Amino acid sequence: MSTAAEAAFAKGLEGVVAGETTICSIEQGGLYYRGYEIHDLSRNATFEEVAHVLLVGHKPSPSELAAFKAELVSERALPAPVIDFLKSSGPWLKSGHAVPMDVLRTAVSILGHLDKDCQDNSAAANLRKAKRLLAKTPTIIGHMQNVIDGKPIVGQEKGGDPSLDHAANLLYMMTGAKAPAEYARCIDVSLILYAEHDFNASTFACRVIAGTLSDMHGAVTGGIAALKGPLHGGANEAAMEMLKEIRTFIEAGKGSVEDFMKKAFVEKRKLMGFGHRVYKNGDHRAPILGGLGREIARKQGPGQLKWFEIGDEVQKIMLRDKNIHPNVDFPCGMTYFVMGIPVPQYTPIFVAARMSGWCAHIMEQHANNRIIRPLSMYTGHPTRKWN
Amino acid sequence: MSTAAEAAFAKGLEGVVAGETTICSIEQGGLYYRGYEIHDLSRNATFEEVAHVLLVGHKPSPSELAAFKAELVSERALPAPVIDFLKSSGPWLKSGHAVPMDVLRTAVSILGHLDKDCQDNSAAANLRKAKRLLAKTPTIIGHMQNVIDGKPIVGQEKGGDPSLDHAANLLYMMTGAKAPAEYARCIDVSLILYAEHDFNASTFACRVIAGTLSDMHGAVTGGIAALKGPLHGGANEAAMEMLKEIRTFIEAGKGSVEDFMKKAFVEKRKLMGFGHRVYKNGDHRAPILGGLGREIARKQGPGQLKWFEIGDEVQKIMLRDKNIHPNVDFPCGMTYFVMGIPVPQYTPIFVAARMSGWCAHIMEQHANNRIIRPLSMYTGHPTRKWN
Repeated sequence: MSTAAEAAFAKGLEGVVAGETTICSIEQGGLYYRGYEIHDLSRNATFEEVAHVLLVGHKPSPSELAAFKAELVSERALPAPVIDFLKSSGPWLKSGHAVPMDVLRTAVSILGHLDKDCQDNSAAANLRKAKRLLAKTPTIIGHMQNVIDGKPIVGQEKGGDPSLDHAANLLYMMTGAKAPAEYARCIDVSLILYAEHDFNASTFACRVIAGTLSDMHGAVTGGIAALKGPLHGGANEAAMEMLKEIRTFIEAGKGSVEDFMKKAFVEKRKLMGFGHRVYKNGDHRAPILGGLGREIARKQGPGQLKWFEIGDEVQKIMLRDKNIHPNVDFPCGMTYFVMGIPVPQYTPIFVAARMSGWCAHIMEQHANNRIIRPLSMYTGHPTRKWN
Repeated sequence: MSTAAEAAFAKGLEGVVAGETTICSIEQGGLYYRGYEIHDLSRNATFEEVAHVLLVGHKPSPSELAAFKAELVSERALPAPVIDFLKSSGPWLKSGHAVPMDVLRTAVSILGHLDKDCQDNSAAANLRKAKRLLAKTPTIIGHMQNVIDGKPIVGQEKGGDPSLDHAANLLYMMTGAKAPAEYARCIDVSLILYAEHDFNASTFACRVIAGTLSDMHGAVTGGIAALKGPLHGGANEAAMEMLKEIRTFIEAGKGSVEDFMKKAFVEKRKLMGFGHRVYKNGDHRAPILGGLGREIARKQGPGQLKWFEIGDEVQKIMLRDKNIHPNVDFPCGMTYFVMGIPVPQYTPIFVAARMSGWCAHIMEQHANNRIIRPLSMYTGHPTRKWN
């Protein structure tokens, strides 16, 4: 082991640079996708445009965008075996043995078996597969929610409504109703914010898998598995579950937000949606999404706005007592909640967004590959004989 | 970014220590599983004993071993939805859109949906899941091969023959015939050799996934995806395909092994089964497995022994011209081949072995967790405006 390597030994690879990328840059002062700052993107771009930036590398011209969107729409429908699988998943989800993130992982894994490009890692085949995965992920989520609700699958043949954009169609497939433009835009912005975040754990898992020259479907299957964890994508669900717990606590007259938090600190509960390995002074994405969600809640009335008021208090206490800022998962939970999205689908929606970043990283890894194979430090039993 | 981190920037994390482990130690002078040296284990232990060492931490007593083996046997049978899925996989495998490693990945992913412990990351639940995964993986492989062969599934209700040990039962399920003891022992040793190898790419993928506090089934699904790649587990299949190509070349009178190799070097073909990120003077496992395979081939006659003779020439030329030693995947290809195992199942059999190591690492990660989240170095487009 070299001296450099010894110096770098940091649990969880904290502070270790694991490779180069042209896709994303996270600075304390800003988050950039291929050079575009995240506030700029969330104000001025759509998710489809951002996905094009990530996958193809540049802002699409009007004709490129039209072609890209048309291709996504044409790829939305799911093959019959995936629909059959989703239909069979109802009892597993009901039993609690499986959660939507698990079912999504298997559904995406099956998609690979039906993709004629599955075994082709060329740049052209990878881009085709990336567009298919991007187009089909919301359809899987929508159809799965219909199965959970025991309702007919919305737009089964076409993957929703071809006239709707990516975000609006996702909401439409989940609920069967066309959402207000304001909701669709809010989901669209959340997809932009969640699209990419350099070497986060799930993207790094995708790169480790792709680095053996395994295929894109396998790599994103691993990405979904990683994103599920409550220390990563699962935090948006966990954050909302905690807020529900706090509200029940308050409304049952058991005490204030402050009382709940003090108790949580004493019990050493890990509060999800706070802190970030990279951001030390707050997550640039959090206020963008929180602002949109709060605006929706305000129009809905005091009962819904209350979630954000509780959230404000939780944030204030976390900053005062722990000096920790919320990350994007904290406002995301409340924002999705006031739009009526079922909590167990928050992380799957994160997948619908991050699929774009994952696929861009897999393509980048394949284009300039070196297998990702670190060393470990052995701290176990000394040498011993079997007999 | 700290100076230590900058110093450590190594493509593919080469030479970077990514964490501690008590499971395995790879030295230039030996390979150790929890302190037991690999020659000692391959001579004196069975795969079930080795799996116990990896998962539980120590050599089992006779009664512990009996209980462990009985538990594995009792967990071999697959739930109906997984059998149904395998039955549906025939056309995908025939089309070439899917390979057995892909189907195995999905089958294992589905197992999670049916496991009542799926969402429980406690040490006790993880050990129960690890034993189930270990027991069921050979059954998936065996049943899949029956589906490929268009034959009835061998031992569908019981997962093979409860009187057979792990390795012998795997062969039995794949072929429907009880294998000679010598074959069963050879497979058993190959499982021991493949069981564990510290922070290799697939195990590291498992740890990255588990590090978000995602679940064991998700993590091993990612491990299977990573192992598929020809730079990792897929090398045993690729090595055998190359040997077949060489033999065809020779027998068609097109030239010698030397001629083939020279052409391959000129064409800059990557020859699989050679070299290793960690071993610089050869892989300790290679001669162990090669010796057993050669003995089987010798008894079968010159036609089969020829594979090993071609292999010897390839090895000599690789060492002479490239100074690269074979790794375990090179003799593995020939060894499995002379026992009549279909080439596309070589890497799935590797999974049947490595499942023990993966699960041990997932348990170790969960027991002392820190999310694995490195940094990247941005080398892309400078900051730009959307409009």
